[in-house]
Amino acid sequence: MAAAALLLVAALVALGSGHGGEAFDPNPLQDFCVADATSKVRVNGLSCKDPAAVVSDDFFFAGADKLRDEVSERYGFSALTVQIPGLNTQGQRYARVDLAPGAIFPPHYHPRAAETALVLEGSVYFGFVSSYPDNKLFSKVLHKGDVFAVPQGLMHFLYNNGTAPATLYASLSSQNPGLVLLADALFAGALPDDLLAKTLLTDKHTVDNIRANFRPS
Amino acid sequence: MAAAALLLVAALVALGSGHGGEAFDPNPLQDFCVADATSKVRVNGLSCKDPAAVVSDDFFFAGADKLRDEVSERYGFSALTVQIPGLNTQGQRYARVDLAPGAIFPPHYHPRAAETALVLEGSVYFGFVSSYPDNKLFSKVLHKGDVFAVPQGLMHFLYNNGTAPATLYASLSSQNPGLVLLADALFAGALPDDLLAKTLLTDKHTVDNIRANFRPS
Amino acid sequence: MAAAALLLVAALVALGSGHGGEAFDPNPLQDFCVADATSKVRVNGLSCKDPAAVVSDDFFFAGADKLRDEVSERYGFSALTVQIPGLNTQGQRYARVDLAPGAIFPPHYHPRAAETALVLEGSVYFGFVSSYPDNKLFSKVLHKGDVFAVPQGLMHFLYNNGTAPATLYASLSSQNPGLVLLADALFAGALPDDLLAKTLLTDKHTVDNIRANFRPS
Amino acid sequence: MAAAALLLVAALVALGSGHGGEAFDPNPLQDFCVADATSKVRVNGLSCKDPAAVVSDDFFFAGADKLRDEVSERYGFSALTVQIPGLNTQGQRYARVDLAPGAIFPPHYHPRAAETALVLEGSVYFGFVSSYPDNKLFSKVLHKGDVFAVPQGLMHFLYNNGTAPATLYASLSSQNPGLVLLADALFAGALPDDLLAKTLLTDKHTVDNIRANFRPS
Amino acid sequence: MAAAALLLVAALVALGSGHGGEAFDPNPLQDFCVADATSKVRVNGLSCKDPAAVVSDDFFFAGADKLRDEVSERYGFSALTVQIPGLNTQGQRYARVDLAPGAIFPPHYHPRAAETALVLEGSVYFGFVSSYPDNKLFSKVLHKGDVFAVPQGLMHFLYNNGTAPATLYASLSSQNPGLVLLADALFAGALPDDLLAKTLLTDKHTVDNIRANFRPS
Amino acid sequence: MAAAALLLVAALVALGSGHGGEAFDPNPLQDFCVADATSKVRVNGLSCKDPAAVVSDDFFFAGADKLRDEVSERYGFSALTVQIPGLNTQGQRYARVDLAPGAIFPPHYHPRAAETALVLEGSVYFGFVSSYPDNKLFSKVLHKGDVFAVPQGLMHFLYNNGTAPATLYASLSSQNPGLVLLADALFAGALPDDLLAKTLLTDKHTVDNIRANFRPS
Repeated sequence: MAAAALLLVAALVALGSGHGGEAFDPNPLQDFCVADATSKVRVNGLSCKDPAAVVSDDFFFAGADKLRDEVSERYGFSALTVQIPGLNTQGQRYARVDLAPGAIFPPHYHPRAAETALVLEGSVYFGFVSSYPDNKLFSKVLHKGDVFAVPQGLMHFLYNNGTAPATLYASLSSQNPGLVLLADALFAGALPDDLLAKTLLTDKHTVDNIRANFRPS
Repeated sequence: MAAAALLLVAALVALGSGHGGEAFDPNPLQDFCVADATSKVRVNGLSCKDPAAVVSDDFFFAGADKLRDEVSERYGFSALTVQIPGLNTQGQRYARVDLAPGAIFPPHYHPRAAETALVLEGSVYFGFVSSYPDNKLFSKVLHKGDVFAVPQGLMHFLYNNGTAPATLYASLSSQNPGLVLLADALFAGALPDDLLAKTLLTDKHTVDNIRANFRPS
Repeated sequence: MAAAALLLVAALVALGSGHGGEAFDPNPLQDFCVADATSKVRVNGLSCKDPAAVVSDDFFFAGADKLRDEVSERYGFSALTVQIPGLNTQGQRYARVDLAPGAIFPPHYHPRAAETALVLEGSVYFGFVSSYPDNKLFSKVLHKGDVFAVPQGLMHFLYNNGTAPATLYASLSSQNPGLVLLADALFAGALPDDLLAKTLLTDKHTVDNIRANFRPS
Repeated sequence: MAAAALLLVAALVALGSGHGGEAFDPNPLQDFCVADATSKVRVNGLSCKDPAAVVSDDFFFAGADKLRDEVSERYGFSALTVQIPGLNTQGQRYARVDLAPGAIFPPHYHPRAAETALVLEGSVYFGFVSSYPDNKLFSKVLHKGDVFAVPQGLMHFLYNNGTAPATLYASLSSQNPGLVLLADALFAGALPDDLLAKTLLTDKHTVDNIRANFRPS
Repeated sequence: MAAAALLLVAALVALGSGHGGEAFDPNPLQDFCVADATSKVRVNGLSCKDPAAVVSDDFFFAGADKLRDEVSERYGFSALTVQIPGLNTQGQRYARVDLAPGAIFPPHYHPRAAETALVLEGSVYFGFVSSYPDNKLFSKVLHKGDVFAVPQGLMHFLYNNGTAPATLYASLSSQNPGLVLLADALFAGALPDDLLAKTLLTDKHTVDNIRANFRPS
Repeated sequence: MAAAALLLVAALVALGSGHGGEAFDPNPLQDFCVADATSKVRVNGLSCKDPAAVVSDDFFFAGADKLRDEVSERYGFSALTVQIPGLNTQGQRYARVDLAPGAIFPPHYHPRAAETALVLEGSVYFGFVSSYPDNKLFSKVLHKGDVFAVPQGLMHFLYNNGTAPATLYASLSSQNPGLVLLADALFAGALPDDLLAKTLLTDKHTVDNIRANFRPS
């Protein structure tokens, strides 16, 4: 696993951090509660900096028009989280996502958010799947200026099956939506092989072959 | 008041309709509750169409890359609401906003939402004001790729004080955020002249002069 | 600007403080979380004092039957916030408002609350305006014993156009509703003159004349 | 049981109806959703009338300065609910409560609201009890202009142990807070006698004696 | 009052602590916020331990298949709270309840939760009472494998009127539902005798006789 | 695919129906809103039957002590949903889950709920995985009387790797939590083969082999 992939991990931590985002978040109880990066107080959400010290830059982010340098070696996408400490308690998070031709943002879901995305450039196949037992696919090939919405918690994916790079701007209904990549959740962690074989209705050999590609080299 | 302005009103109804949007909305209680445009049931929010009849297009909108034809004669901006019936119960709404050089989206607020906007083209002066008694201005001149966030319910504005057209993509934390333009709320309705004169610490003559411009011709 | 006006500011800070109130607040997670005035922990809302130290006076306020000494020089009203630390996490705030004959509580809104008011003495013209594009005025002349309700986030005002003093008891659906006076939000802060002229469809001269009265002397 | 008591029941249904009020209610999703008294649609809360038919009177109630005619024969209090259909979805309810000398509003709680009350006239002993196992009493003798707050769901009571009539204005943090009178919940319904005897650590004879007074004559 | 009863108090504090549980709690803003037993920060709910220090045991409890040693001397029941620090911010609490033949869990309510219970062994009479003025009893004799639900905040009770021990597993819709035993709320605290006599439509002598049994010996 | 499996689908629809359950649901606005199975009104959640027609059985379910007849052919588990119409608006759902030796309840999540389960019989390996990028496994081998909690929206699984049948009682923090089986979401629907191959870092041949087992025979 190369440095670029490791850096991407850091970017995705910002996007889908397991500790710090939400959807349909509790209402704010003051004008703003700008996240205090230095605080050691741990609560549901993030504690606030002194309101007297809040400045315009706390609500500002620059660079969403630029591709991140690091690209997922596995999947060919890159994700740039919009970092705005003033969004703490405001129930929103944003990210720019780029996909090279052939790249995917693999099937995933946000445990604490709905998502809506606007295509800024290129075209992309975007879909989500309804819950059990329907597993019904709702999908569209999106072009520049198209918008597509994914209901809270449902599995969705992006696939650039065209020949030009594609760029999207994603909006999530939580300050910390969380991110679960289905393949990583199954293969990158410590799930027993026989559980996985049973899950996929296959044999442990097939599971081991897939799993090998999810292990850090 | 010309036809273009009247059409813009229709667009803004979609953006900030007094009856149909929200911020920090109640959580969804099913995969999706796609708004049923034909229903006569009136509840908090919108009733749902038959889930068996839901299709991919219910989550889709095309044309956010195109300027609306109609432009506010008063202010020189245009606003295009992203119409997605599948966003009902999902706590989100989106709009594209264009400002000709010199145009403003005048000071306003959303009674039921926070807002975050991305600059797609051009540059724009964007700010919000904190609540009484501080009335402190938080603002930035934004360029392409910049993002700025406005906390729930606070007054904010856009001003294209450059020489090129500017375009933004606005995300709101409610399916029906509501929109209150401060000048319209004061001058376009039926508030008594003497109340307005007292409010603005001025005389009725000044109020009448201003008000004349907010009356339909 | 005289001392009385400055003191009024302090009273209104308590009423509509930018940092510390809310509407439709998150549910409480214990019997009570009495606001701890000495805490340096900053979270969404206020931290709690030791429950073992909580006393009956934490839920008590005396003096809502008395007019505040300080009166707004600009507008002729006075506002007395009911200070009850035990209301932290309970989704409520209260205030007594007095208006001398001819006085107004100028057009304003609460970013995080609905409001309902009872007339204790006198009579008052009370109204709110619906959101864009209707800007429809809903209003009544209220007398002693009348109650009037303002939906969450909508602009409203009080006007004592009678000859006797009027007193109201206002209830807000948040521990920290916030307060935005429209005229102050426009004229008391740092909004550019040309933005204001465009907003009011007038010239900068008119704006400057109005603005002069909102500047501290 | 006389007609006056029966009428009081109707008043208290309005105050604490088992079907129609709430505390920390879901946020509103439009400017207003005025309760439609004619609707047969039953949902969580109340359905709305056509917004185009909404008038100022939907937000208005007159007569909170007047005592209700009907008085509880059992307890000597009367309660007048402020009836405002526009409060649907706004998370608030109000009532005027009068207590003759010696009268009580017996120990009760609101399953879906916190309550705060202002004394308009007279004096009253007001208290609430914290939850098990502390059962700690927080109480004050309140006089005109005093305000006292009761956290969500806790048992509280009023007792006019003075010589003059007392009047309060109560604010609840829900459009339908619900009302449970502890004595009625225990004795007015169909709870088995032996359960009650065990509950009160007494014998069935004592229970029967108490219960007889809660039965309609 | 014997040691066993005192120990039971400790168990019930865990079940219904006045400071630390809730129903329809605010949504979580991260994967988990495991309660930090060592923290001195007091907020709405509980603060979190360092997520890097979270272990599987934080989500685990053993022993819900075993009866607690301590039994309520007054009522003959025992209650065992499922202690799981990982439930902080997750809107749930659980308890095992055992009732000897003839034992009751006396009429009570949870100020911040609905409850549903499964009968694991034996049979029990389970009921709840709707709010004023109906006071309608909804009840069933439950047997092994039966489930019964109590709406949020309504008074309910358990009564083992059979000949074998009964065991239930109770689920509450809050991390800290709170517990109010009606008899204790009335008699175990500091409510005045004459208030109680008026409340129960009886004389002070009867009140004193009942109350004597609620006083610590 | 045999009849037994089809019946199981019906059971799981009840458990995780895509249209009708939730977690951290909006608060109730009346004593109860019992689901009206005959209503054609579609709203967020379910509409209510006439409260006057509500009976004790609306809050009751029998048979949670019995294994369902139908067993998943694929996975060897069975799930029995506790059907209680009175749980509408109460934020809870329950199910009994049985696993034969060797059976799994495959990796899945609930888009709108946290889950806590009690082991009634046997032993089971129970775990959940935190969100990206940690994918950290939190797990325990549970025995009778053990309880384990899964935070909202995180992927979890059950595996009976013992020799005796295992039974659990699962509590979910929503009336309609939803259910997404990861393997079904990936392989049972209409996702393109090449997307799946890219997702699993494998070839289409392997994907086709796995997929064949998820197709109805």
